[in-house]
Amino acid sequence: MLKSRAAVAFAPNEPLRIVEVDVAPPKAGEVLIRIVATGVCHTDAYTLSGADSEGVFPCILGHEGGGIVEAVGPNVTTVKVGDHVIPLYTAECGECKFCKSNKTNLCSSVRATQGRGLMPDGTTRFSYQGQPIYHYMGCSTFSEYTVVPEVSVAVIPRSAALEKVCLLGCGVTTGIGAVLNTAKVEAGSTVAIFGLGGIGLAAIIGAKMAKAARIIAVDINPDKFETARQLGATDFVNPKEYDRPIQDVIIEMTDGGVDYSFECVGNVNLMRAALECCHKGWGESCIIGVAPAGAEISTRPFQLVTGRVWRGSAFGGVKGRTELPGFVAKAQSGEIPLDTFITHNMPLEEINEAFDLMHLGKSIRTVIHF
Amino acid sequence: MLKSRAAVAFAPNEPLRIVEVDVAPPKAGEVLIRIVATGVCHTDAYTLSGADSEGVFPCILGHEGGGIVEAVGPNVTTVKVGDHVIPLYTAECGECKFCKSNKTNLCSSVRATQGRGLMPDGTTRFSYQGQPIYHYMGCSTFSEYTVVPEVSVAVIPRSAALEKVCLLGCGVTTGIGAVLNTAKVEAGSTVAIFGLGGIGLAAIIGAKMAKAARIIAVDINPDKFETARQLGATDFVNPKEYDRPIQDVIIEMTDGGVDYSFECVGNVNLMRAALECCHKGWGESCIIGVAPAGAEISTRPFQLVTGRVWRGSAFGGVKGRTELPGFVAKAQSGEIPLDTFITHNMPLEEINEAFDLMHLGKSIRTVIHF
Repeated sequence: MLKSRAAVAFAPNEPLRIVEVDVAPPKAGEVLIRIVATGVCHTDAYTLSGADSEGVFPCILGHEGGGIVEAVGPNVTTVKVGDHVIPLYTAECGECKFCKSNKTNLCSSVRATQGRGLMPDGTTRFSYQGQPIYHYMGCSTFSEYTVVPEVSVAVIPRSAALEKVCLLGCGVTTGIGAVLNTAKVEAGSTVAIFGLGGIGLAAIIGAKMAKAARIIAVDINPDKFETARQLGATDFVNPKEYDRPIQDVIIEMTDGGVDYSFECVGNVNLMRAALECCHKGWGESCIIGVAPAGAEISTRPFQLVTGRVWRGSAFGGVKGRTELPGFVAKAQSGEIPLDTFITHNMPLEEINEAFDLMHLGKSIRTVIHF
Repeated sequence: MLKSRAAVAFAPNEPLRIVEVDVAPPKAGEVLIRIVATGVCHTDAYTLSGADSEGVFPCILGHEGGGIVEAVGPNVTTVKVGDHVIPLYTAECGECKFCKSNKTNLCSSVRATQGRGLMPDGTTRFSYQGQPIYHYMGCSTFSEYTVVPEVSVAVIPRSAALEKVCLLGCGVTTGIGAVLNTAKVEAGSTVAIFGLGGIGLAAIIGAKMAKAARIIAVDINPDKFETARQLGATDFVNPKEYDRPIQDVIIEMTDGGVDYSFECVGNVNLMRAALECCHKGWGESCIIGVAPAGAEISTRPFQLVTGRVWRGSAFGGVKGRTELPGFVAKAQSGEIPLDTFITHNMPLEEINEAFDLMHLGKSIRTVIHF
């Protein structure tokens, strides 16, 4: 048993408590990682709120981390001690029908147990005072040490700054990947991005990488427009400034609608607006945001029959083990400006403050340092 | 003025009346066609019911016709007297941004006036006792003579039997095109077809042309399964035989869901089932059916975020002037077995009986002969 400082979510809607948990050694096919830094993402807050049907308590949240391999269990062949890694909440086994399809990144290899807060053998590696603590999204990066399946580890170059590229473990990759991998935006396209949090800003970067001609940033908080502009947005729309549906506004300003739109909030009304602001005949809308449990999207089928396409994206359609090294390289070259996302840095002990900043809309990402 | 026998819809929900209407000569860019035969489609019945917000009365319905060019107006260059043609409710001008996009068949050139029952100059060519009679879907094939824009005419080989290939003017092309053009079904795919009317049966043909490995035919009327089997369906599902959602049944019988599904009824609940029976990660559902005015489709966004795609198709994504000759050739070679669709033939005078047969589910297509 290894002692590890961790921020534990003992119950929904309570602050995390910093305690020393016990971490069992990695079993066969598992990897022990020393987490160097982790981002705090809205999905962590969503689960902490109790609204996530897959949330199991007590657990160790966090799924946007960077670390160094401390030990590997038996039969681990693709990861070795000392490797710099990013844990993946979307594994990549390379063997399941999803991995083999070449149409999706949604590997099924560890999905069933991961959704129940367990390792693939059905047990946890974390405990506190002899009681099990559950894993979260197969990552649990709010702990100095964590154990994840080998298939859930992306090895990255040692030259990359872990306290920055940890953000590629979720939000930044999700936004960029949705544009490049899922929607496959073409050069010259007109793109609308709904919501300018971390994912929306990343989607702007993706749209710029795709050489979109026009990138329309939509948010009810105009304070976010300046960062959007720095990243490449060309037009700015605040729905509060209009008394008609925002899809009508965007259709008018684009002579018929956008080629691609991205919903980066998790609001089902906004998802509808994002679809309906697409151009007849070819406009495609991609849902990235996570909606509250039970919420449903709606539209008239005529919207689809006249050529609009509705799709969604998880982790940007990115196969983590294969593709994350490329994202890291782009971060190192500056093409993905991670510094723009890191508005705050703090030690693990202050992690509840990071949640507060996020709820108040005062941070893009806080990076927690161990 | 030319005298023409026509079935006129004087008011919603009343039988058509066979009368002699006056047809004005074609103006610039217009073509006068002598209709030889026409199918009767559910969309004609939908508009006749009064539920179609674009329905304008009195009008001459019909949009699935075949005929011979009788005269052309000034400046008509691509169609000549004696040409055998199929009128198109989806024009193809080749010049608008839709035609130039190469992503859609939804030409906008005559859309605005067509939707109001008018020719592009804002007037009608039909009249009865001096009062204007409106056009319908830019075709009005329930008339011995009709006038349509040049861009709404597909020229086909004279060797094709007009009383058969007229069906390529709507339903058969719509179903096949949705599979081949819109969804682009790949060889080896598993496909589910919801609703075995003319469009659903045509979608089965399309799936067979695409070399789908498994074609699941879904209908609450098992009498339709035999024809579906003849056309290539491999599995048959009657939702009435199950007490659980039909999407669950199909997911189970396909080990996770189908690769492609097609809704060919116009029922928004079925549209949802068709989406949700698609395989996680890559399944695509295509809406072909026309839903009642105001009806909306719904689902949980999680369905899309986990990789399903929702799209729709109008006239099968087929560019009529460019692609219909190829469909005609396939009908002539027997690859598209039109005879299977023609369950009844009758003269114009009996057209109301064709509507009755359709409402009772006793016909696939009735062909009206002039």
